[in-house]
Amino acid sequence: MTTYLDHAATTPMRVSAVEALTTELGRTGNASSLHAAGRSARRTVEESREQLAAALGARPSEVVLTGGGTEADNLAIKGLFWGRLAQDPARRRVLVSAVEHHAVLDPAFWLAAHGGAEIVLLPVDGDGRLDVDALAAELDGSGDQVALISVMWANNEVGTLQPLDDVVALARRHGIPVHADAVQAVGQVTVDFAASGLDALTVSGHKAGGPHGTGALLATRGLPLAPVLHGGGQERGVRSGTLDVPGARSFAVAVDEAVREQPALAPRLAALRDDLVRRVRAAVPDAVLRGPEPRPGTGSVPRLPANAHFTFPGCEGDSLLYLLDSAGVQCSTGSACQAGVPQPSHVLLAMGVDERAARGALRFSLGHTSTPADVDALVAALPDAVTRARAAGLASSGLPTGLRTGGPR
Amino acid sequence: MTTYLDHAATTPMRVSAVEALTTELGRTGNASSLHAAGRSARRTVEESREQLAAALGARPSEVVLTGGGTEADNLAIKGLFWGRLAQDPARRRVLVSAVEHHAVLDPAFWLAAHGGAEIVLLPVDGDGRLDVDALAAELDGSGDQVALISVMWANNEVGTLQPLDDVVALARRHGIPVHADAVQAVGQVTVDFAASGLDALTVSGHKAGGPHGTGALLATRGLPLAPVLHGGGQERGVRSGTLDVPGARSFAVAVDEAVREQPALAPRLAALRDDLVRRVRAAVPDAVLRGPEPRPGTGSVPRLPANAHFTFPGCEGDSLLYLLDSAGVQCSTGSACQAGVPQPSHVLLAMGVDERAARGALRFSLGHTSTPADVDALVAALPDAVTRARAAGLASSGLPTGLRTGGPR
Repeated sequence: MTTYLDHAATTPMRVSAVEALTTELGRTGNASSLHAAGRSARRTVEESREQLAAALGARPSEVVLTGGGTEADNLAIKGLFWGRLAQDPARRRVLVSAVEHHAVLDPAFWLAAHGGAEIVLLPVDGDGRLDVDALAAELDGSGDQVALISVMWANNEVGTLQPLDDVVALARRHGIPVHADAVQAVGQVTVDFAASGLDALTVSGHKAGGPHGTGALLATRGLPLAPVLHGGGQERGVRSGTLDVPGARSFAVAVDEAVREQPALAPRLAALRDDLVRRVRAAVPDAVLRGPEPRPGTGSVPRLPANAHFTFPGCEGDSLLYLLDSAGVQCSTGSACQAGVPQPSHVLLAMGVDERAARGALRFSLGHTSTPADVDALVAALPDAVTRARAAGLASSGLPTGLRTGGPR
Repeated sequence: MTTYLDHAATTPMRVSAVEALTTELGRTGNASSLHAAGRSARRTVEESREQLAAALGARPSEVVLTGGGTEADNLAIKGLFWGRLAQDPARRRVLVSAVEHHAVLDPAFWLAAHGGAEIVLLPVDGDGRLDVDALAAELDGSGDQVALISVMWANNEVGTLQPLDDVVALARRHGIPVHADAVQAVGQVTVDFAASGLDALTVSGHKAGGPHGTGALLATRGLPLAPVLHGGGQERGVRSGTLDVPGARSFAVAVDEAVREQPALAPRLAALRDDLVRRVRAAVPDAVLRGPEPRPGTGSVPRLPANAHFTFPGCEGDSLLYLLDSAGVQCSTGSACQAGVPQPSHVLLAMGVDERAARGALRFSLGHTSTPADVDALVAALPDAVTRARAAGLASSGLPTGLRTGGPR
């Protein structure tokens, strides 16, 4: 029996989404083909597009289907940069928050290295929340050189919700399009594209209980958006590639259900999460909650309801992760851990957490299948894991490599 | 009861691939997560990668999983161009055959418009086969300025197999990497990456009986390949995005089965196709087979076994397509038909077919579910469709718009 506390990485597929997918697998038809099978496939895609749009407060024509959230982020950052630059060669600055996902940061840095972009990393406060004054000052200084702004709806590590209303209001004054990666937000908080005033927004299928390999960029009509993938000209020429008919159907069903269930799920998960935070603090008194302090019962939502993130002093997050995993509790350090080398999270560093403390990070994320028993299991396993991780940390002067050998990258 | 003769657009999923996919849908785990569920997901991906590699004569480390054939082509063309240019700024020329798919042509033209590339369209003969002498002359003249060559394994419209051995031999002399789009070839002819001498090769899932939204670029280790999608650094940093675990599994199962069945399937489909060609010619004597004449029984394979392509004088291909569709026979014009405006195929034009004749194109493509009854149905419906299409063509001086209204793009 395992306890899954890593829903922010990927969440179990919803039964409705599995059914929608498997139903479509038995049908054949390329949605670009002109015959009846092709037209039927196209109809399925367009109905899915309408369902996605309705669930997210967008128009169907604003939905660009992609192969996932990363591709949608790449399309937003590169596509908007190239599109805006073609209109105005002076607009080379790309403003992104310092706590963005790598799917936003890395396209931006690539544009800086190869495409003539200038990247401005917007600072955040100790809770990981964008410094709006810094953005305002940046725009006052060089607003006419900015191609786009990208600030995520909610941070994937510490769950902080960003002040997008302020970002949009500031950007509008300077005529700058704003993109938000809402991969973690859909199904947890209300995401209404039209009401947000955003110009582009990223959604992912598998984070909402849909299939892997599906996603979308919502983009207002008329937005200067250059393609990243060229070819057959699908999706208004903005995203080429054979339309994934079963994927689109299943993705739409998942997002629709996630959004419909959100008003009931969010308070349930927030209560579970609050319980988790309280009991983790009781079990490990020096554990530090990162990100905004939840405010139970106030209706105010400074962070995602399903997210809890701690640093455990004197521990390596990786060690803790493997020790908890051995005890059947699955979670994440919240940071990219590539090639087996533990990198302190850029999110925590941007929040002012020192490198040593940042190494002790652990993210617990809940989802639609979470129960109180999951919290019980974590709290039961945590004290021993922390004790052992601290001992390992003391025993080795540096990295407890023995614990890490053979782990996947 | 419909007759599906459009397998080159997409082919029904194999039962084994559906089963593999549905089995995986019930499991949760991000293949980049470090806990047991993540490691299990990663194991599934790596086993799938090994299966794909074994089926295609590649090493597992040469398989870069993508979201489909179009993305793999974009990665090959842009990634190789950027990668080579970084090594040698003089190498700005991109050599592609004039009959490539848009997923190759459009990235190349985009690089020319925005990335400083010079595109050379390599000519083909009347059968759509690359003019190897023209390539040799091009390389003798400016081989030291060439970044890459891309020539497809088999043409998607007329089925012509390309002389890749000659292309690879010529390219090697000049140290130029060669990419081939083998989307149409896998499962129809032997595709062995190592034996081919190619540096990069595109495969698609849904053309082989696997799921939509899956594909791969095979790329030799050490090939200078810049990423097109940036982010979490999956796939050795060459293709970021959460790994599609169920998709990878199902894709691998489909390709494995397609390759194992190919020795039996290819002669069966070739015989069906030869029968189709003979009876179409008998029914419509002035129909012109495009692409190489099949050579039944010789063991020589100038074109894909499952492909037949005709032009019907005096007909609009679109009209024919819709008339056959009304009679329950589904096929394709073989040309991109975007925004409802019939464009004569760039493939046929490159083969020297005049624009008027090219408008009468129709592609019939067979696949693993094809039977003799499919050919019977086509031959039964075709004469009446041709008669009516010709009448429509005579009645209107230009486009038979009435037949086209409301059709999908």
